[in-house]
Amino acid sequence: MSTPPILLTPGPLTTSARTRQAMLVDWGSWDRDFNQLTASVCEQLLAIIDGSASHHCVPLQGSGTFAVEAAIGTLVPRDGKVLVLINGAYGQRLAKICKVLGRAYSTFETAEDQPTTAADVDRLLSADPALTHVALIHCETSTGILNPLAEIAQVVERHGKRLIIDAMSSFGALPIDARQIPFEALIAASGKCLEGVPGMGFVFAEKNALAAAEGNAHSLAMDLHDQHAYMAKTGQWRFTPPTHVVAALHEALAQYNEEGGLPARHQRYADNCRTLLDGMAAIGLRSFLPAAIQAPIIVTFHAPNDPRYEFKDFYERVKAKGFILYPGKLTQVETFRVGCIGVVGAEGMQAAVDAVAQVLREMEVLDI
Amino acid sequence: MSTPPILLTPGPLTTSARTRQAMLVDWGSWDRDFNQLTASVCEQLLAIIDGSASHHCVPLQGSGTFAVEAAIGTLVPRDGKVLVLINGAYGQRLAKICKVLGRAYSTFETAEDQPTTAADVDRLLSADPALTHVALIHCETSTGILNPLAEIAQVVERHGKRLIIDAMSSFGALPIDARQIPFEALIAASGKCLEGVPGMGFVFAEKNALAAAEGNAHSLAMDLHDQHAYMAKTGQWRFTPPTHVVAALHEALAQYNEEGGLPARHQRYADNCRTLLDGMAAIGLRSFLPAAIQAPIIVTFHAPNDPRYEFKDFYERVKAKGFILYPGKLTQVETFRVGCIGVVGAEGMQAAVDAVAQVLREMEVLDI
Repeated sequence: MSTPPILLTPGPLTTSARTRQAMLVDWGSWDRDFNQLTASVCEQLLAIIDGSASHHCVPLQGSGTFAVEAAIGTLVPRDGKVLVLINGAYGQRLAKICKVLGRAYSTFETAEDQPTTAADVDRLLSADPALTHVALIHCETSTGILNPLAEIAQVVERHGKRLIIDAMSSFGALPIDARQIPFEALIAASGKCLEGVPGMGFVFAEKNALAAAEGNAHSLAMDLHDQHAYMAKTGQWRFTPPTHVVAALHEALAQYNEEGGLPARHQRYADNCRTLLDGMAAIGLRSFLPAAIQAPIIVTFHAPNDPRYEFKDFYERVKAKGFILYPGKLTQVETFRVGCIGVVGAEGMQAAVDAVAQVLREMEVLDI
Repeated sequence: MSTPPILLTPGPLTTSARTRQAMLVDWGSWDRDFNQLTASVCEQLLAIIDGSASHHCVPLQGSGTFAVEAAIGTLVPRDGKVLVLINGAYGQRLAKICKVLGRAYSTFETAEDQPTTAADVDRLLSADPALTHVALIHCETSTGILNPLAEIAQVVERHGKRLIIDAMSSFGALPIDARQIPFEALIAASGKCLEGVPGMGFVFAEKNALAAAEGNAHSLAMDLHDQHAYMAKTGQWRFTPPTHVVAALHEALAQYNEEGGLPARHQRYADNCRTLLDGMAAIGLRSFLPAAIQAPIIVTFHAPNDPRYEFKDFYERVKAKGFILYPGKLTQVETFRVGCIGVVGAEGMQAAVDAVAQVLREMEVLDI
């Protein structure tokens, strides 16, 4: 292929040429120049949540899930108990992590189009005093649903419990201010709304909680206390860092700030989402979620009813026109997903909508 | 800086422009094209050890240490016991992993310039019938020492025990044939002798052992049984892969094969090592290990005696001349290390030696 397709997926996503070109240099992982790169990345990440007074930024090798597991393993004591709020596959994964790590947990599950409410959390925390932590997904990538983080965080704090936020899909695009939203850990990754390449995650860990977490972890590689202590002492990662990924994230953050930071990133994604929803509605494709709980990150659409529709064929045809879509992740209804994030604007989203319309005509899919 | 320095380190190391340029494309992690890339990488890796009949190749996000921990956590049953052979920092790390994971283990430690012998292992296995596994470092990066893998593997097999090999620094450059050397797991990573960029490891896991390992793992993200089962079913990584790192490794493997595979890679590194040892000897710098146990991967040199020698200054001056060295990792003697691996040949190594000589003159280090 000459021009690679645009990735309309929840990440890895389309990055800028400038970000990818930052990977054309090899860095020594022990070298001062690279240590400065790491420190600068952490400082810029903390600035996005205004968290430098309250939290440490602990980067970790691997995908976002590695960082989520590391946060739970490091910060939830072995005798802790986690209330996991679920309305999709990533909430399920949180529960699975607790299970594998041997941390006590209970789950509260709502339908995939139903946000958890603060009232639910209030009731559940009152009912079980053994709970020490609440874990939730801010924007659930399974559907694109947004959970009411601020309200839930207030309730968790009022109960004297601790909050762990998987903000993988929202961080950098939806506002989260550490001075207003109390949390023990917030987790995200390089290859999402910051528009870096995948290969590292990071955890914003509340300073006192991290200091108290020595010896909690179930893993050497995923011990965030150890990772932070070593980095604070030496400026280096404990184990070989993904140097090129770090360099790409550093360059992506420069562009993030040049674009206008979070407000500008949020606005572009919101415009992308609007263009997508309007365009798809004009074709007749219905979005799964009501607008009020739809985050401008990824949109789930009902598959057409027409028997001539078949996802694999649809996917390949849209890809041939330059756009990579994402399969649905719901068990009950047939859906597909389209991301609004990455280096793409409203014009690109409109072109994707046009490609979808053309493909449905080619496939003679009439009953949408 | 205009031209980045050559990395004479044990990894990350200097890669080719072609390998880095493979990172200029964004890949969809769900897409068929990327699945093919992953499958091709695994197939090529297995071919290097002639292991496709006996072993699965399971790639894993993160640094090499993540893959080592994953191998121990997945393959050593919770009631297993590991004999860890130690003659350097990476052997110590194996023991630490067993400790954190709660696997029973005992250690056998020799001096940093003393390989473990097959006779040692024979004696230790006879003495403790509870042992189920033996774990060793093939080439210990702390010093560059080579342990006698083939002999140890035979003894372990004769005792009916299982062998886990950390081949991080040797894989791809030193011959290991799965048809001749019995092992349960061999672990390496992208950013070493294959000359890819750092960000993923991989484990060659014996097929029956991997099949029997369901439920062993202490971690979700590092569960190699789960990772393999999902990949076998879908062609995809379970969690977001470091797509650009995988693409770079694919391109690095193409160049590996074009160069002539393992024999050619080994010969180039052996020539690099020879040039380095001869050149440094001519300056008066003494290598820490005798030639017979020196792997052509990384060489440890005694620091000069002269009080005017100071590593940080020496390092910065050599770096200014275009070469990044590596600090020593020994506690008893002051040393520094020079890697022989990466995209560099004998000419480059000679230039590095010349730079070292010139820097020592500049620093007026006379007593070498």
